[in-house]
Formats: sequence, structure tokens, C-alpha cells
Amino acid sequence: MLADGGIFGETGVKDFAGGIVVHETAGIAALILAVMLGARKDQSKPPHNPGMVMIGAALLWVGWFGFNGGSQLAADGGAAMAITVTHISAATASLTWALWERIKFGKASLVGIVTGTIAGLASITPASGFVGPWAALLIGAVAGILCQEAVVLIRNRFKIDDTLDVFAVHGVGGIFGTIMIAALGYGSWVAQLGSLAIVGVFTIVVTLIIAFVCRAIVPMRADAETETNGLDLAVHGERAYDMTS
Amino acid sequence: MLADGGIFGETGVKDFAGGIVVHETAGIAALILAVMLGARKDQSKPPHNPGMVMIGAALLWVGWFGFNGGSQLAADGGAAMAITVTHISAATASLTWALWERIKFGKASLVGIVTGTIAGLASITPASGFVGPWAALLIGAVAGILCQEAVVLIRNRFKIDDTLDVFAVHGVGGIFGTIMIAALGYGSWVAQLGSLAIVGVFTIVVTLIIAFVCRAIVPMRADAETETNGLDLAVHGERAYDMTS
Amino acid sequence: MLADGGIFGETGVKDFAGGIVVHETAGIAALILAVMLGARKDQSKPPHNPGMVMIGAALLWVGWFGFNGGSQLAADGGAAMAITVTHISAATASLTWALWERIKFGKASLVGIVTGTIAGLASITPASGFVGPWAALLIGAVAGILCQEAVVLIRNRFKIDDTLDVFAVHGVGGIFGTIMIAALGYGSWVAQLGSLAIVGVFTIVVTLIIAFVCRAIVPMRADAETETNGLDLAVHGERAYDMTS
Repeated sequence: MLADGGIFGETGVKDFAGGIVVHETAGIAALILAVMLGARKDQSKPPHNPGMVMIGAALLWVGWFGFNGGSQLAADGGAAMAITVTHISAATASLTWALWERIKFGKASLVGIVTGTIAGLASITPASGFVGPWAALLIGAVAGILCQEAVVLIRNRFKIDDTLDVFAVHGVGGIFGTIMIAALGYGSWVAQLGSLAIVGVFTIVVTLIIAFVCRAIVPMRADAETETNGLDLAVHGERAYDMTS
Repeated sequence: MLADGGIFGETGVKDFAGGIVVHETAGIAALILAVMLGARKDQSKPPHNPGMVMIGAALLWVGWFGFNGGSQLAADGGAAMAITVTHISAATASLTWALWERIKFGKASLVGIVTGTIAGLASITPASGFVGPWAALLIGAVAGILCQEAVVLIRNRFKIDDTLDVFAVHGVGGIFGTIMIAALGYGSWVAQLGSLAIVGVFTIVVTLIIAFVCRAIVPMRADAETETNGLDLAVHGERAYDMTS
Repeated sequence: MLADGGIFGETGVKDFAGGIVVHETAGIAALILAVMLGARKDQSKPPHNPGMVMIGAALLWVGWFGFNGGSQLAADGGAAMAITVTHISAATASLTWALWERIKFGKASLVGIVTGTIAGLASITPASGFVGPWAALLIGAVAGILCQEAVVLIRNRFKIDDTLDVFAVHGVGGIFGTIMIAALGYGSWVAQLGSLAIVGVFTIVVTLIIAFVCRAIVPMRADAETETNGLDLAVHGERAYDMTS
């Protein structure tokens, strides 16, 4: 348990594997940085290679078992249940994300279904040491729809170019899972909402400080030509595919 | 042990991790559906990206250790031996598949060697809790040749477009491994052959019912234009590679 | 422990998971074969697909935990520490490799950072059962720079076309880690340097014998046309991507 006895001391906050301290913080920091950077010139570009996106998500899915199960700090039944509910939530969110895409757009995409996987993983993370299979099914089912709506909101309504949907998926997922701990009776509303608020304000302040200090030293945004040509060649001296010969 | 004490009750059927209840059923169902759908217009198309095929097979290979080892339902020597024989069979079948391709066609292909891997994994699955390393070597060695001949038979002789070779690899492999349990003296011929026959007939009947019900509700086959353009865009609204620079 | 009590008997040689018997031998054998084969006509070609290189390295990284941790032959604290130091060395070498590339060439590449990962993994391998986190940090930090300089030396100074940098990364890394066991006081200088020398000479002799016998039977080098067209089609009858339709 990362929190509860850790940095949260005797506050009664429940956050098994980092919904607050990993996913809320990451999501808020990403949102602030995306706003500061501004959108790409062509915000509509889909991922270049959905097959690679899927392989990455598959490796993440398996790695997450170590992350949530390992937060038990013991190879016992609690770790096994944490892994089980992690799997259930990830699988359920994948399916509800695909279903919701199908209902809204007529087509369910590969990038969508694996984004749903990550939504389910992030959402169960804070709760994975407390809840059982049925609660995981509920958390995952809601996560697949809630995080998808958050993506639409951030991208289309607020026009924020959070390219990897870090806020909508990790941030909203982590916050949602933390709230569900209270909603399902495993923690107090005051502790859960209070910690989300305190950590949220902390993250905003510290991210802004770090970002402004960085921006004062190095330019954060690639110049227009580099953006058009892609960063691979400019920053890494590599192409995604070498086509010589 | 999925069977033997499970749905097979006191029948004496030996099926450690699902040669009958996973691979025979999957193979027969796939064959029936492939026949009902009919072949693609261009049945000769090779997989688009052999490198991706290999990554998928590599992840499957590792995942299979959890599948066969986990069927012991304990972290003991039995699970370790199940994992060991799984590895031996997969590696051996990969090699005999490649060797057989080389002998017959003069060239051993990447897609071939990893199909051999799956053949070795499917074949050892029912036997993985009973046999030792030498038996695994034998099962894998035969599987790489037997399943390859089954692929040729299904594709070239019967002209059935089972695109992923599910029957030839999973079906034939699972049935072969189930029979080897009797042949190697770990189970009775009556129980092994009887269960294969009963489950086979069950699978045929239930697959036909499901398929005809589905076909009555939604069209099973893509229309000609969608087939030519590929299903990615039509069904998922995605391309394998986004080329907008 | 592969050595020390194994083939090294009562010699006092320390080689936990194969720095000498896996990586020194592999590196020297690769170097000899690369010299015997001669360079490709176009030695400057970068890897075709850096994304695939990264996926492969990521799978290797995780697999290495089983390799080094498993060499403890027990699921105990020693295995856990072996995995921990393996991770620290791999991560540190990745970072120092990238930093060194950035300092020397102005750009840090993806292929570079993952080659650094492998350098860190190979270097910690012989020491992984003896050292703690700080020593792993030191070994990894040096490995990322040392192996990179070895790559430059082999490729640019000696013009040897060791395509996968097996000698510079595995060989130099394995030898470096073996020496560090003595330097950090976990083993004797005589035993470590002596075993490296003996195994090195053995590897040179045996590799030459195998290579000359092979060359007498089959041609080792592809003909010029096959080399230009790529071996995929000539040897395996496959293309990296099937573009039909």
C-alpha cells in the first residue's frame, strides 16, 4: 500500500497502488503541460501504427499485475485478489469502451479498446487491495465509458491536445477509482475527497513551478519545421523505418 | 486439471490443461466456421507482417507457461514440470516444423517456425501434467510435422480457408496430445478416444446452432468491396499504418 | 550459480549467472565469425525498424530477471537481490549510454538507449548474486559508456562488421562485470582474470575449429545478389511486409 500509513500517515486515506499518488498526479501534470505547450498543428493525426499501440498496451497490462499485486508487499491471497480484480477491471473497461464507441460512432477501434484497457487498469489501481470481483466489474464497466467521455471532453470541447490522453485516462481513472473506495464503503468520503483535493492542488503548484523553471532554461516546444518533419530525426537522428536499399 | 474430476467427473479422462476442452473444441469450431464462410477471394495471401506474427507467438509462448503451469493449481514441482515439458515441446516442434519445411520446400520460414511453436504448445497442453521431458520431446517432434501436414491437407487438398490454421494447429495438436496420453500409458484408450468423440460431436452440433442463429441475425461474410479494401477501415475505422505525414 | 562449484570447480572463480560462460564466450565467438565473414557491402545501414528493436530489448529485459534471478536456484532474498541489481544496472546503463551519445553526437537514439540496456544487463550478470544496489549503479553507469566506446572501436577503428555489436556489448560487458567482482572485493583477481583468459583462449580455439569445419561444408557468406536483395526472400521465402493488394 503506497498510501495509508505511508505519506498519508494516520489520515485514513485508502490508495492501494497509487490512484492518487501515481495516476491523479500524472494526469494533472500532463494536462497542465499540454495546455502550456499548446496543440500540435494537426491535432487530428491518429497513432501511426495501431498494432504497436496494442503490443505496448498488452505489455503494460501484464506489467500492471506486478504493480498492483506487488503493492501488497507479500505473495499471499491479498496479492492474488489484487491481480484478479485488476484483470477483471481491465477486461471489462476494454469491452465497455469498445461497446460505447460502437454505439456512438458505429465502429469500435483497436486504439480505442486498448485505451479502455488502460482506463480499467488506472481506475482499479487505488481500489485493487480492497475490492472483490463484482466491484472490479462495476469499476471497469464505468471506467470504459467515463474515461472515453473525458477524452472527448478534453479533445473536442476544450481543444486540449493531450496526445496520449493521460489526464482523461490515467487522471480521471485514478480519481474515479479513489472515489469508488468511498462509494463502496471501503474508505471515508472525507479522507478520499480530501486527499484528492490536497494532492491535486499540490500537483498543480509543483507542476507549474517545474514547467516554468524548465521553460526558462530550454525551449519546451519544437520549432515549426521540426514539428512538421517529426521529432525522430531532429532529436534522435533516427527514422521509424530505415528504407535504404 | 481442467478435466478429470471436473466436467469429466469419474470417467478417467486425462486432460491436464485443456487439449480437449480448449483446443479440440476451438479447432473444430474454427473449421466449421471457415467452411460456412467460404474462402477469401485471394486465399494465397501471406501474413502482412511476419515480425508481428513472431512477437505475438513469443508472448503466447510465455503466457502458455501460466496456462499449463497454472492448471496444477499449486506452485509446486508438478507446476514446474508442466512448464518444463511445455517449453521442451514448443521448442522441439518449432525445430521439426522448420526442418520439415526445409526438406519439403527448401526454405524454412519465420511464420512456419512460430506456427510450429503453437503446434508444440497445443499438443503438450493435455499431457503437460502427466509426462516428463523425453515424452515432451517426442510429442513436440511429432507435432511439428503432423500439424504442418494437417495445414497442407486443409489448405491445399480440401481448399478450406482456415486463415489462422486453427483446426490444423490447435485442433489436430490438442487431439494428438490427448491421444498420446493413452499411447504413453498415462490414460486409458477408451477414456481418451471416447471423450474426444463425445466432445467433438458436441462441438459440431453446438457450433452449427450458434453459427446458424448468428447468420440469421447478422451477415457473417463481409461484402466483396470491404473484403478487397480490408476490414480495418470498414469495421474499425483504422488503417494498419497512418501515413499522413 | 553457473560457475563456482560448477565447471570452475574449486577454483574460486565467481560468475553468478554467466558473464564468462555466456557473454565472454558469445562475444568472442561473434567477433571471430564477423572477421571471417567480412563486412557487409553497406556497413552503415541502421536497423530497419527501431520500434521493433525496442520491443525486443524490452522482452529481453524482463526475461533477464528470470535468467539472473533463476541462477540463485531458489525463490529467496538472494534471487530478489539479483533481480533488483539487474534492474538497476540495466536502467543506469541505458541512461549513461543515452547521455554519452548526447554529449558526443548531440543526439541520443532509441537504438542506442536499448543497446545500453543490454550492456547493463550483460555487465551485471556475473556479479548479480554478489553485489548490492550501489555496486549495480556503478557497474551499470560504467557499462553504458565502456560498451559504447567498444562499439565505436570495433566498428570504426577496426572496421569489423559485428552487426549486432555482440562483442562490444555482450563480450565487453561480461568481461567487465567479471573483473568488477574482483575490483569490488567479492572475488580474487587471479581467479577472475585467470578464468577470463582460459575461457577466452578456449573460445577462440573452439570457435575457429567449428567455423572452419562449417565453412568446409557449407558457404558461410551469402552471394552478392542475395546480400543486396536481403536474406529474407532468399533463405526464408518471406518478405518483412507483404504488400500484395
